[in-house]
Amino acid sequence: VLEATRTLLVEKGYAGTTVQAVATLSGVATSAIYRRWPSRVRLIEEAVFPGFGPLRMEPTGRLSDDLARFIDAYQATFVLPSARAAIAGITAEYVASQQVQPDQDYLRLTVRPLFYEIIAAASGDVVDASVDPDDVFDMLLGTLVIRSMVPLVGQRALPTERLVDLLLRLFSPQVEPTARPERA
Amino acid sequence: VLEATRTLLVEKGYAGTTVQAVATLSGVATSAIYRRWPSRVRLIEEAVFPGFGPLRMEPTGRLSDDLARFIDAYQATFVLPSARAAIAGITAEYVASQQVQPDQDYLRLTVRPLFYEIIAAASGDVVDASVDPDDVFDMLLGTLVIRSMVPLVGQRALPTERLVDLLLRLFSPQVEPTARPERA
Repeated sequence: VLEATRTLLVEKGYAGTTVQAVATLSGVATSAIYRRWPSRVRLIEEAVFPGFGPLRMEPTGRLSDDLARFIDAYQATFVLPSARAAIAGITAEYVASQQVQPDQDYLRLTVRPLFYEIIAAASGDVVDASVDPDDVFDMLLGTLVIRSMVPLVGQRALPTERLVDLLLRLFSPQVEPTARPERA
Repeated sequence: VLEATRTLLVEKGYAGTTVQAVATLSGVATSAIYRRWPSRVRLIEEAVFPGFGPLRMEPTGRLSDDLARFIDAYQATFVLPSARAAIAGITAEYVASQQVQPDQDYLRLTVRPLFYEIIAAASGDVVDASVDPDDVFDMLLGTLVIRSMVPLVGQRALPTERLVDLLLRLFSPQVEPTARPERA
């Protein structure tokens, strides 16, 4: 059923991925599908975002390395063709229903705790304690989502190392302006 | 017609804002609406994002002030109830149609040139020339869009000054790690 859902998302788009179409392609009755998933959105969510078991990683303490690994793994989910087809559709349905899911993160991507771990494990003078990791995570999430959803942004190449550099800048302890070296 | 479109977005959501419904509420025939706007998406876009005439501003050169004014004006568009209802729906349609609009920016928000102007006008040693303004703009755009679309992110308070601080950090010239003051 999940495989059929992903196939339909790629071939027919979000609108074409109905429970009926999934039933036909998978050979599983719609009643059985609805017993397992209460709604079409939940089915699509689970098919596209199976959760982040594979992303479990031990932070090494080298912040740039850890962020690069984190971004590569996280981003991989957003660029799958089935995910591209699903993200905007799922989000539109949530907005329309004004539904808030306090018990889980956006799109089942509960990676925020791992992000905190990586920041907490960073060794060296690279993290300014006055920067809220949630603010940085939201910027990263927004950047990845918009790259997935908006073609004009997604077309611009932004290699992982450049995104890592930007995140390091966000966390970097700031020097007083007077202490900054003069630039020509 | 545009006013009726905005009213319907707030009251009936994106799905309920059909050209037929706009015609009924505004008293304008659907044929006349289609003469002016080739599609429902274009009508909704123009109703919600009338372009950024009012955002024309002269950069003062004080980067933090200019960014704060820019963000306040830009963000105001995203938090309108009609915009919240429209953004995810419009984006989903673009993704579904795989349509790229090379001649205009996302959601008619052609504010990128103004952002460049602000960065170019910044006085003092606050902008590292090695940082690509496009990268920073994409992060800002992603942050604002995700705040508008994802309730869990939008609920977190992120005042303009904190977002300005994060952008200043992104642009800030970096000191060599060895030159950084020791932290206790």
